Amino acid sequence: MNIQNELLSIIQDVPNFPKEGVIFKDINPLLRDPVAMKKVIAEMVGFARELQVQNIVGIESRGFFFGLPLALQMNLPFIAARKKGKLPGIVVNESYNLEYGSDSIEIQKSALNIGERYLIVDDVIATGGTAKACSNIIEKSGAQVVGFSFLIELAFLRGRDLLQNSAYKFPIQSLINIT
Amino acid sequence: MNIQNELLSIIQDVPNFPKEGVIFKDINPLLRDPVAMKKVIAEMVGFARELQVQNIVGIESRGFFFGLPLALQMNLPFIAARKKGKLPGIVVNESYNLEYGSDSIEIQKSALNIGERYLIVDDVIATGGTAKACSNIIEKSGAQVVGFSFLIELAFLRGRDLLQNSAYKFPIQSLINIT
Repeated sequence: MNIQNELLSIIQDVPNFPKEGVIFKDINPLLRDPVAMKKVIAEMVGFARELQVQNIVGIESRGFFFGLPLALQMNLPFIAARKKGKLPGIVVNESYNLEYGSDSIEIQKSALNIGERYLIVDDVIATGGTAKACSNIIEKSGAQVVGFSFLIELAFLRGRDLLQNSAYKFPIQSLINIT
Repeated sequence: MNIQNELLSIIQDVPNFPKEGVIFKDINPLLRDPVAMKKVIAEMVGFARELQVQNIVGIESRGFFFGLPLALQMNLPFIAARKKGKLPGIVVNESYNLEYGSDSIEIQKSALNIGERYLIVDDVIATGGTAKACSNIIEKSGAQVVGFSFLIELAFLRGRDLLQNSAYKFPIQSLINIT
């Protein structure tokens, strides 16, 4: 069994969550399976090594589940990108659009080092709005985004196009591709 | 330098966050320090091994930072205890009081195995309300809480007393004790 099929056999589809008509990918069964989790992290380590990543950014809150073990295994700093108001101290903020209204995400300024190489990690890429906002924070701070790593890509929502809409095509890893 | 002093030299005090008069312990600098993080996880592994833990529960969201690496290192299931409405599927819920009003926390029913041994992990124990609610969920489901592991104990808030108010005194680990 390849890793995508193995992971799909563990992750559960939950219909109508968090609202009618959405099929939610429940990764909690994966978190309960340390053997499968280590395979996920190993795949992400391989990708991050090739990109010579120096910092791992995890997006609140399910991005923490993959970004933090990845950072520990690579002996790299882990940086939490969090919803507005959750991080103390001086933060860099970026807004992004939701279906209705907007939200914003923040990273501590002290975690953004000019010229260093950052990998952004999350569980799912849907429309890509949050990941793009996170990338904008890093780039406007003078640091460098070198790629994105996702457990699941909802390819039909074309989030990849949003992330790669600049002249430079960021490398994007997704272990499960849902078309 | 002992581990408490080493960790205190990394964690930052942020006055008046999230509100006036509170000194917030910012653990983000610790997350950026993989060597120190590994020392924290090693201490928690030692404690969890002695208790013959079978499942690690991390409390949303900073409990994830310590619970998940602990679970991976011990090859144990990681279970996320989350705020109301965040977990799909059938959940077990418990309310707890806040300074003003109340909140509630949930664990997926499928993660609660009768008779198995659970360790509850969080970054900080303050009044202990959330950890206690989490413990109640596990115990009313027929599973067993065998202890608690915290990075920081705000001992002056006496959360330990709340957790240990039953006939059985749960073992409680805290790496940093603030009196």
